[in-house]
Amino acid sequence: MEIASVHDLAAASRILADQGVFDAAGHVSMRHPDNAERFLMSRSLAPALVTADDIMEFTLDGESRDARGRTGFIERHLHGQIYRARADVMAVAHGHSPSVIPFGLVQVPMKATYHNAAFLAAGVPVFDIRTRFGQTDIVISSVERGAALAGALGDAAVVLLRAHGFAAVGPSLQAAVFRAIFTEISARVQLQAAALGGPIAALDPEEGRKADMINLATVGRSWELWKARVTSPMERPQGERI
Amino acid sequence: MEIASVHDLAAASRILADQGVFDAAGHVSMRHPDNAERFLMSRSLAPALVTADDIMEFTLDGESRDARGRTGFIERHLHGQIYRARADVMAVAHGHSPSVIPFGLVQVPMKATYHNAAFLAAGVPVFDIRTRFGQTDIVISSVERGAALAGALGDAAVVLLRAHGFAAVGPSLQAAVFRAIFTEISARVQLQAAALGGPIAALDPEEGRKADMINLATVGRSWELWKARVTSPMERPQGERI
Amino acid sequence: MEIASVHDLAAASRILADQGVFDAAGHVSMRHPDNAERFLMSRSLAPALVTADDIMEFTLDGESRDARGRTGFIERHLHGQIYRARADVMAVAHGHSPSVIPFGLVQVPMKATYHNAAFLAAGVPVFDIRTRFGQTDIVISSVERGAALAGALGDAAVVLLRAHGFAAVGPSLQAAVFRAIFTEISARVQLQAAALGGPIAALDPEEGRKADMINLATVGRSWELWKARVTSPMERPQGERI
Amino acid sequence: MEIASVHDLAAASRILADQGVFDAAGHVSMRHPDNAERFLMSRSLAPALVTADDIMEFTLDGESRDARGRTGFIERHLHGQIYRARADVMAVAHGHSPSVIPFGLVQVPMKATYHNAAFLAAGVPVFDIRTRFGQTDIVISSVERGAALAGALGDAAVVLLRAHGFAAVGPSLQAAVFRAIFTEISARVQLQAAALGGPIAALDPEEGRKADMINLATVGRSWELWKARVTSPMERPQGERI
Repeated sequence: MEIASVHDLAAASRILADQGVFDAAGHVSMRHPDNAERFLMSRSLAPALVTADDIMEFTLDGESRDARGRTGFIERHLHGQIYRARADVMAVAHGHSPSVIPFGLVQVPMKATYHNAAFLAAGVPVFDIRTRFGQTDIVISSVERGAALAGALGDAAVVLLRAHGFAAVGPSLQAAVFRAIFTEISARVQLQAAALGGPIAALDPEEGRKADMINLATVGRSWELWKARVTSPMERPQGERI
Repeated sequence: MEIASVHDLAAASRILADQGVFDAAGHVSMRHPDNAERFLMSRSLAPALVTADDIMEFTLDGESRDARGRTGFIERHLHGQIYRARADVMAVAHGHSPSVIPFGLVQVPMKATYHNAAFLAAGVPVFDIRTRFGQTDIVISSVERGAALAGALGDAAVVLLRAHGFAAVGPSLQAAVFRAIFTEISARVQLQAAALGGPIAALDPEEGRKADMINLATVGRSWELWKARVTSPMERPQGERI
Repeated sequence: MEIASVHDLAAASRILADQGVFDAAGHVSMRHPDNAERFLMSRSLAPALVTADDIMEFTLDGESRDARGRTGFIERHLHGQIYRARADVMAVAHGHSPSVIPFGLVQVPMKATYHNAAFLAAGVPVFDIRTRFGQTDIVISSVERGAALAGALGDAAVVLLRAHGFAAVGPSLQAAVFRAIFTEISARVQLQAAALGGPIAALDPEEGRKADMINLATVGRSWELWKARVTSPMERPQGERI
Repeated sequence: MEIASVHDLAAASRILADQGVFDAAGHVSMRHPDNAERFLMSRSLAPALVTADDIMEFTLDGESRDARGRTGFIERHLHGQIYRARADVMAVAHGHSPSVIPFGLVQVPMKATYHNAAFLAAGVPVFDIRTRFGQTDIVISSVERGAALAGALGDAAVVLLRAHGFAAVGPSLQAAVFRAIFTEISARVQLQAAALGGPIAALDPEEGRKADMINLATVGRSWELWKARVTSPMERPQGERI
């Protein structure tokens, strides 16, 4: 799998804003390609505005290695503790997209409504911060909260945060972005299917496992399209076609 | 808290139009920074078109101090009477966004579906103009109607107007804009959660109180993004980055 | 009330496309300002593309007076027969906007969910072409079908066409455009309120009558905004401000 | 019926992306105008980016005749086997639009909610790949799977693929594009009508048959509008008006 650059990470942030998964908040990170004990993530900034200069390097405990006056997101611990708990995870995206939040508020489990959402077929856990931390400000603002969230995530691709949002992880930056986008879209589909009534013939776990392999193999086609939308002509490599 | 300028107030109007909270109507005001007995508000104009030249000054009873041929909104009394009743309120936004109106028509109370809507956790009252004024044209067109609405608002951050819209208030212009936007978004989330069925694990009042403090401390990040979208390059201060 | 020009009629067509009420189809007409037995309407063309040169003149029976090689819409009889039946109607808009169609398919009556939709408070009849004409192609393609539709409209401001769309009428071009737009928006609001369950505290008929007078008096503010969005700078009168 | 060119086929791909029927995936094909045993289809590429240079020629069994280093879509067998089974079909579109997917997941049949969706009135079958192939990756990646899907389509205009998407066919490229777009829009309408409750007075089969003839005769008006949106000025034939 190709190693993503800080330019790709900045593009990922703008992509998730452009695709409606991030609003004025939301953040995406990737594990450092040369040091598994570090991760890269934007300074605290609206995700639509992130460029490569905004990318900071953190230890897994969320300590900045190159602040240069820049301030990290409070919720960097959500990212760091997932990287600590899950050696297979190379990227994490966290957002509050409107169609996903309902599934963290009710007892209806999220399903994989179609092949693009295959990564949901293995199950989507819900993290309720009250269970361990009581009445809080909801923010994943400490190592302890991050670790508890990573525990709730378990082996899954996506975890819902009650009254907050979700986190999607993947074996590459492109995969995490793909999963964040289709978590939102599949949620929309499921909301509509639920309104029709009756059981939902979603993907079986085995179908999900097989379809996810196809998705991971073809994610580049979606990535290139999404990236082209958030990249100005001057930033594009010479001769790249849009 | 930084004091907002008339340029910010005009931008707030365009922001709320750009974000889909205002349509061809809707208005936002702020208390005069130097005179608590006055407030500033656009002349009667589609909110997407408002610039600093359109801002008028009013007494709390809605009398213009600097009309210069300009006509104020009929509903300026909604603003004036809230400033009179609530010394803590520095800005008011009133709109008719489509996802909020349903909650003024049925018995289901609005909830704070996620941290960005924390200000809703303390409860959202509904004002039915019929209770006191009978069959009207619905418009908050007098001091008396404005005062009754302010009474219904009480200590809340948002009040719903049956078959009309809502008003959101805040301790700063940025906060009122933030609340108006997330009133609409949280309403969308709640409509979808309600369609799934069962109780909704919304923010508890204490969670809401704590999360709202975070929101107020970080509202600038959202504000800058929203403002950049409605500000042309020539209007931006030298060197400001978008 | 100011008399609308053919430029306004063409703008009305583009406005209704821009606002999502018209798709690749839909048409708006106005009674001829100098001859109550004629009406003006675009040639058959996607509504987003209509300019003043596309406006044709028809008798109330749908005969063209100035074809010059241009072809009228098949459904011009919907317009002509409403002008014949309703002397108070100066403009008619007919579209198929997605949120309105459901109310022509089920037994739930449309309500006036808020003041902008006040014109719906007096009731919204449904026209089922099967009742009189049996199994048809649904199109209002004859004087007879148009007259039957006008009969179903009666004194109302809006009539729903089962499995087809709706027609909105008004005492001016601006009013008909306003009503077409807020028929669609109010339908969206009602769909959401219905999903929450329980009765809907919509506008009473008397509230609707009063609020509609306000709407008709202030429609110019919305019109100017909508028109600015579909008018290129070169077409604007000298000095007009956008 | 006018014969479509490879430029039209490329435009069809961009139209379906522009209209929200295709996302980063989705593909449309047409039968070769000079050889009924061949079909034309884009190389594997995001549909919004397709131009005439991307169009490849395939046998009905999905073998490329002019690859020149280009890679076809895995799912070209969906297209090829429909052309084999249905001599009347001249174009096929396959996408995953969000409002259509729910109808492949539940027991509620799709209806023709209005005249533009008349082609649905004869019934919309659902293809569940599990029935014949068990637990798969969902993709129509072989002649066998394509043939099974074509069998499920039967004489219909549209077939739903459970947990996957849909395919729409037509007697011309323009008709297939029109049907793909209005399959999505009618699905939205039906989802909303279903939420209101009670039976839905959709088009009867006979109404559908008659209305579809009108649609096929007037599809050019919609096509021109859609095409103008995805065609840059330099690509337009001299003098063509937008």
